[in-house]
Amino acid sequence: MPEKERLAIGVDLGGTNIKLGLVSKAGKIIEKTSVITEAEKGPEKVIKNISKGIDFLISKTNLKIKGIGIGFPGVVSTKKGMVENPPNLPGWKKVFLGKIIQKKFRLPAYVENDANAAAIGEMIFGAGKNYDSFIMITLGTGVGGGIVLNKKIYRGQFGAAGEIGHISIDFKGRKCNCGSYGCIEAYAGNNYLKEIVNNDLKDHPESKLWQLVNDNTENITPMLIQKAAEMNDHYAKSVVKDLGVHLGVAFASMSNILDVSTFIIGGGVAGFGKPLFDSIKETMTERVLSSSKKRIKVIPAKLKNEAGIKGASALVFYRS
Amino acid sequence: MPEKERLAIGVDLGGTNIKLGLVSKAGKIIEKTSVITEAEKGPEKVIKNISKGIDFLISKTNLKIKGIGIGFPGVVSTKKGMVENPPNLPGWKKVFLGKIIQKKFRLPAYVENDANAAAIGEMIFGAGKNYDSFIMITLGTGVGGGIVLNKKIYRGQFGAAGEIGHISIDFKGRKCNCGSYGCIEAYAGNNYLKEIVNNDLKDHPESKLWQLVNDNTENITPMLIQKAAEMNDHYAKSVVKDLGVHLGVAFASMSNILDVSTFIIGGGVAGFGKPLFDSIKETMTERVLSSSKKRIKVIPAKLKNEAGIKGASALVFYRS
Repeated sequence: MPEKERLAIGVDLGGTNIKLGLVSKAGKIIEKTSVITEAEKGPEKVIKNISKGIDFLISKTNLKIKGIGIGFPGVVSTKKGMVENPPNLPGWKKVFLGKIIQKKFRLPAYVENDANAAAIGEMIFGAGKNYDSFIMITLGTGVGGGIVLNKKIYRGQFGAAGEIGHISIDFKGRKCNCGSYGCIEAYAGNNYLKEIVNNDLKDHPESKLWQLVNDNTENITPMLIQKAAEMNDHYAKSVVKDLGVHLGVAFASMSNILDVSTFIIGGGVAGFGKPLFDSIKETMTERVLSSSKKRIKVIPAKLKNEAGIKGASALVFYRS
Repeated sequence: MPEKERLAIGVDLGGTNIKLGLVSKAGKIIEKTSVITEAEKGPEKVIKNISKGIDFLISKTNLKIKGIGIGFPGVVSTKKGMVENPPNLPGWKKVFLGKIIQKKFRLPAYVENDANAAAIGEMIFGAGKNYDSFIMITLGTGVGGGIVLNKKIYRGQFGAAGEIGHISIDFKGRKCNCGSYGCIEAYAGNNYLKEIVNNDLKDHPESKLWQLVNDNTENITPMLIQKAAEMNDHYAKSVVKDLGVHLGVAFASMSNILDVSTFIIGGGVAGFGKPLFDSIKETMTERVLSSSKKRIKVIPAKLKNEAGIKGASALVFYRS
């Protein structure tokens, strides 16, 4: 069978659901499925649920499967395929997830932190294909990051590198869940963003956002902020612009440290689109050292909704 | 002749003086000299002056010289040994300094950005010897940095990595010479530090610093601030502590991004000593992600005054 027809299985392990897919070397999802995580029942049960999903996918193809990639929501020691104390999966303490899956299915298994898997996905299948080095940022509940240097993911000494969400842009700024202050996550994470708008909206009685949330600030979502901005609402537009400034400040610091000038943005909030990307790029260009100003690129991620599955499957193609 | 007796020549090229030394593989300076740079006369004259210094050192030994290392105050493309537009040396535009010196002396020549050379010096001869990965920070007029990852200097795509001085810790903070705001250099660089104390001292009429500067704030130097702090002056101690907080915030962001936990601090202001180091470490420990808290190390550089020469000479031993 020709190499190019080989498939990989990508497993996107989340706190609520496990999404799995059969992915071609070109990054096409051939078949997919989803099982509930049952995180509260501990690692043994979760691994059983992962296996159920893998079994289903294997039953769906006659093509040779090259390996299994797993995106894991926590710190991973990739050498050992060992995962450690993920914040959203109780009871996981030094579990050799890679080895267990590998033994069970007699296929090479690769485990990687999910933000790193997303970066590898963009490198192999997506917006990072043509760049040797880039930073991938996922804007979700948290602000996740993956650093690609010379076509390799940078993991750091203990596999904890790329915590871009915890760059402080204001050392006396907003309190972050991590215990520090002014972390970019405390400005750009979904819940923080909602909180900021929730606090500020009362000073903007003219905003169209009031109508979109039915006069109830509890209903604020990034999607509705985006909608209001697209309706040319002045306040919503300023929220998007400010978000770009905050992200741009953090990215400029990163660019000055790492001499990397390409930033790929994914996740729900990236849906704010061009106004957000323009604001980030403008801020970065103002703030990076002069030698880098012309090189700055801020581009949207390509993998979108299937980033989790595709990123995980990319681990298989990345290693080989 | 046994390998260990080989020497390297280290050249510390500054805007005013060129310091040169014959350095043993153990990092001992056998002989040294200094010539004026005459920067204003352009690269040809400066290279002549460098050569004069090298000639003098060569005449002083019968031992075999392994190579010449040059620490350069600007961005260096190390592959080509090419230097570009240094801020303090007028007229240098794409000069192949490495090739020129190599040809002239028939010895391997290595050119490296001076902050990176200092980091390599600490790695080969100094406080970084026992660490695979560390960040080296030099506190001088500017705040320079070098990033060592797995015993290799990290240069970035264009040789401009490690600009630690331009991490912003407050995006609406102090204006920095680079054009951005809140850069750590604008808090910790010598002139900025003097400016801050100059502005604040009038609110502290009781400070012993008044006496040390003869009631003239123009006389403020980091050395006198240190002296006052050592005399237990409350205000001077708060300056040192705040400096540690500012640096600690920037270093915590770096640690979260790079998963590096050892920070080596050199340069004049590092003379503030234990109170400064304690404040940096305390701030970092408060602010880094929990998995790194116990790993944080903040230690003084070892090479001190001869860091320039030794760092440059280390380039020769580093490559071989």
